[in-house]
Amino acid sequence: MANAPYIVGVDIGGTKVACVLAEAGGRILARQWQPTRSVEGWQAVVQQLFEMTEQVLEGVSSSQVRGIGISCGGPLDSQKGIVYSPPNLPGWDAVPIKQLFEERFGLPTRLENDANATALAEHRFGAGRGTRNMVFMTWGTGIGGGLILDGRLYRGTNDLAGEIGHTTVLLDGPLCGCGKRGCLEALASGPSIARRARELASESPESLVWQRVSPEEVTAQHVVEAAEAGDTFARFVLAEAATYMGIGIGNVAQILNPERVVLGTIAVKAGDLVLEPLRRALAVHAWGRVREVLQVVPAELGDRAQDLAAICLWIED
Amino acid sequence: MANAPYIVGVDIGGTKVACVLAEAGGRILARQWQPTRSVEGWQAVVQQLFEMTEQVLEGVSSSQVRGIGISCGGPLDSQKGIVYSPPNLPGWDAVPIKQLFEERFGLPTRLENDANATALAEHRFGAGRGTRNMVFMTWGTGIGGGLILDGRLYRGTNDLAGEIGHTTVLLDGPLCGCGKRGCLEALASGPSIARRARELASESPESLVWQRVSPEEVTAQHVVEAAEAGDTFARFVLAEAATYMGIGIGNVAQILNPERVVLGTIAVKAGDLVLEPLRRALAVHAWGRVREVLQVVPAELGDRAQDLAAICLWIED
Repeated sequence: MANAPYIVGVDIGGTKVACVLAEAGGRILARQWQPTRSVEGWQAVVQQLFEMTEQVLEGVSSSQVRGIGISCGGPLDSQKGIVYSPPNLPGWDAVPIKQLFEERFGLPTRLENDANATALAEHRFGAGRGTRNMVFMTWGTGIGGGLILDGRLYRGTNDLAGEIGHTTVLLDGPLCGCGKRGCLEALASGPSIARRARELASESPESLVWQRVSPEEVTAQHVVEAAEAGDTFARFVLAEAATYMGIGIGNVAQILNPERVVLGTIAVKAGDLVLEPLRRALAVHAWGRVREVLQVVPAELGDRAQDLAAICLWIED
Repeated sequence: MANAPYIVGVDIGGTKVACVLAEAGGRILARQWQPTRSVEGWQAVVQQLFEMTEQVLEGVSSSQVRGIGISCGGPLDSQKGIVYSPPNLPGWDAVPIKQLFEERFGLPTRLENDANATALAEHRFGAGRGTRNMVFMTWGTGIGGGLILDGRLYRGTNDLAGEIGHTTVLLDGPLCGCGKRGCLEALASGPSIARRARELASESPESLVWQRVSPEEVTAQHVVEAAEAGDTFARFVLAEAATYMGIGIGNVAQILNPERVVLGTIAVKAGDLVLEPLRRALAVHAWGRVREVLQVVPAELGDRAQDLAAICLWIED
């Protein structure tokens, strides 16, 4: 079935699950999605996935399907196909998802963490096309990463390569959700941007941000919108986060010497408001010879990323 | 000649040049070395290398030689075989060393930077044996790196991967020789250890270090020797440098999730005096799941590293 025309892609998220049937070229033929029934436990979610998979496979014979690709938050074991306890999937603990799918559908199944799978998708179909060495970084609620090195996904020893969000950028910096201090994620993620705006609220009463939302309820999205409207406080907060991103990416660039760094959500939404200060910081923290081959660009796939991510597990570059 | 039994290895250093004839298994059959005639210009050094190569090749027919491997400080272009301007080779500027050797000897020639070549040697013959993902770091006058990922040398886009010594570990930290601030090399290299001892000399008049050498002439070697003799000041200075190494290695570990980090000179000479504080810092800056698959160990090849490094360019793993 290695050359079969169809691929099933399954995306397991904390708030939504989706299932697609696609051609190897990326065209989506059928798509199902539902809110994740996570409160009902992992068995209910797996049942949900089985039903959606059956629906997208309706009328398709097994021999026409190359395989099933599953994209899910880590920690997980991609080789054994086991999902451990992703923070966004409470109650999951060593779920043998690959085995469960293979038994149910008789189709070879691959599991990959979502940052890696999205890296493959941006590399194959998006902002990383044509590159040999590409770093993809999610930049939203968390900061994760996927590494394409010498044209292939690099997973590391136990599927933890690319945890760029949890490199130390500021010694003794703010506490991170992971338990460390000064992680890039604690300085530049969406929640960190919101926290920083909140911390500085009393010193910026004039900001547009506080005309729209209270400090208790502010999100990075509010900050980006105010910055787009020209608000100097919001621009300052974004630039600070972007500067830390530039420092973190500088370290990655010195270690991996990539030709492209592709950045997710916040870079896509805020554009030059973050990319400009980010590149300025990068110029301080990465060598000229490293930067001369490096482009830092926003991701291109947007909402299509999740669908394409899972099916990329069955597409050879 | 791909399966020919012999390999020529050429090591170009700032103070000495060496040339060996070896078997693919690593046995050295002939060896020449001389002080580098660097003051006479690059042509003189190349002439020197040609003569030594002729000497080790005496009585060997070309058909018995797989190729010539050249290990040299960067920056260089491994694919084109051109050495740019290594800091330790004044006057070198775009020397086409591969072409010069191929024209002179009619043997296929490969060029690699010394940190990468040593990484290959430690991986094949030394402390990295049997690993799939290994980071080698020189730790002496400079801090360089070579990355073996998924079993193969990863060079990056323009031969600059592995510049771990020039990641930013301390924002606004001491000025580095490279022009950046707070680089790992500026905090933990041999000269940085000596500088730190010098800075603190007036506050540590009782230290053994100052019974043996003046602050003006102190080197990392003096600090290591005093630390080995139990001197608390010397131990403090080493532990501080080792702590920064632990932070830098923590970042590398979060990005690359390697199974082994192999450390050069200072780790070999100072052993637990640096490895103990280094591992303590690593425990703060890298996740438990990352550390559970990771060993940090001193290099094993010592003086043999240079000889083996160059010949590894012709040995497939």
